[in-house]
Amino acid sequence: MITIHSTYNFPPFLKGIVRDIRPVWLLEELGMPYQVKWNDVQKAEHKSPEHVRHNPFGKVPAMSDGDFSLFESAAIVNYIADKAGKLIPKAGTRERAVHDQWCFAAVNTVEQPVFDVFVCDTFAKDTPGVAERRANSLANAKARMAVLDKELSDRAYIAGSAFSAADVMMVTVLAYARAPEILADAPHVRAYLERCTSRPAYQKALALQGKGPG
Amino acid sequence: MITIHSTYNFPPFLKGIVRDIRPVWLLEELGMPYQVKWNDVQKAEHKSPEHVRHNPFGKVPAMSDGDFSLFESAAIVNYIADKAGKLIPKAGTRERAVHDQWCFAAVNTVEQPVFDVFVCDTFAKDTPGVAERRANSLANAKARMAVLDKELSDRAYIAGSAFSAADVMMVTVLAYARAPEILADAPHVRAYLERCTSRPAYQKALALQGKGPG
Repeated sequence: MITIHSTYNFPPFLKGIVRDIRPVWLLEELGMPYQVKWNDVQKAEHKSPEHVRHNPFGKVPAMSDGDFSLFESAAIVNYIADKAGKLIPKAGTRERAVHDQWCFAAVNTVEQPVFDVFVCDTFAKDTPGVAERRANSLANAKARMAVLDKELSDRAYIAGSAFSAADVMMVTVLAYARAPEILADAPHVRAYLERCTSRPAYQKALALQGKGPG
Repeated sequence: MITIHSTYNFPPFLKGIVRDIRPVWLLEELGMPYQVKWNDVQKAEHKSPEHVRHNPFGKVPAMSDGDFSLFESAAIVNYIADKAGKLIPKAGTRERAVHDQWCFAAVNTVEQPVFDVFVCDTFAKDTPGVAERRANSLANAKARMAVLDKELSDRAYIAGSAFSAADVMMVTVLAYARAPEILADAPHVRAYLERCTSRPAYQKALALQGKGPG
């Protein structure tokens, strides 16, 4: 059975942000059995030798499937979808290359400025020069959203007409866009987020996030 | 034939940094025929309708292979390696999931703090609060390097004992580590970079980067 290595006891504002929601959401979509290994962040259990065995960076999520361990949320999500043979184009096809393209776009091109605005509004909000840093990242984030808005103007999901693992990645990256200015001029992105986050599997994953072993 | 959409006329300090070096390096490793479509950044040709057709974000690289276009350097690199059937594990295998894991780690977990130090030392060097921002990112970058240094202490390449497309990604992300402090305590990472960047295919790609159509 697949084990997702997650955390609990993190600050409440990180609900929906911590990346362990990604594989859990996908597993719920697929109806696959899984278990969660909870790491208490207050006790730094995600930095313990036991966890670092699964993710050397001491981050979550990690996944184990028998004696096979994997880290990086996008790699885990794609592995699980491949294992199910659902919600992902067949490995080695052009459709899969496009799927991968959107996964990489999510965690790099889109995440970078959107996450930086989130950082400016939270962890870094009292640092010197944060207003200028935020203004620059906000401009970049809005430029990225303009591109995504156009992409999503003529299709329902990021990699095509059907929901896929690429949406699990893109939607959970766009969750960092808590500052309303980022999506103010991107109605198709807002509708896409509503469409995806209203799925029962997302709601189940969100409810489970951070719950802990208790 | 594969076309790599690249740029020229960018500031000289970006040589080795612009991401179009990635697919070119891999194509040189594979000995595959390709052509370069040069976009003059001074004329914003990378924002032109012609280029945006290949990469809606107006960035490089993009790739076209006949009527098939792809963007995001990692997706392009993996597509090319899959097409050649070399320097990448077979699609759909556990080895490929591990390969993908390192590609995602490169462009997200490793890139984020390392690139931010580079930004602090270049584009953002005169912004208010940059010293504090840089110190924070440097600490994170060094923590990531400590992990990579341990990983590379018992194997020659990031995803195993043989050079692969994952190294094209990781090495070119580590190229952002121009500040010597980042790698000061990571001798295995420094040796890995030397091992990879001394490859003739990397040197050819570096020489070609930014050359332009002239």
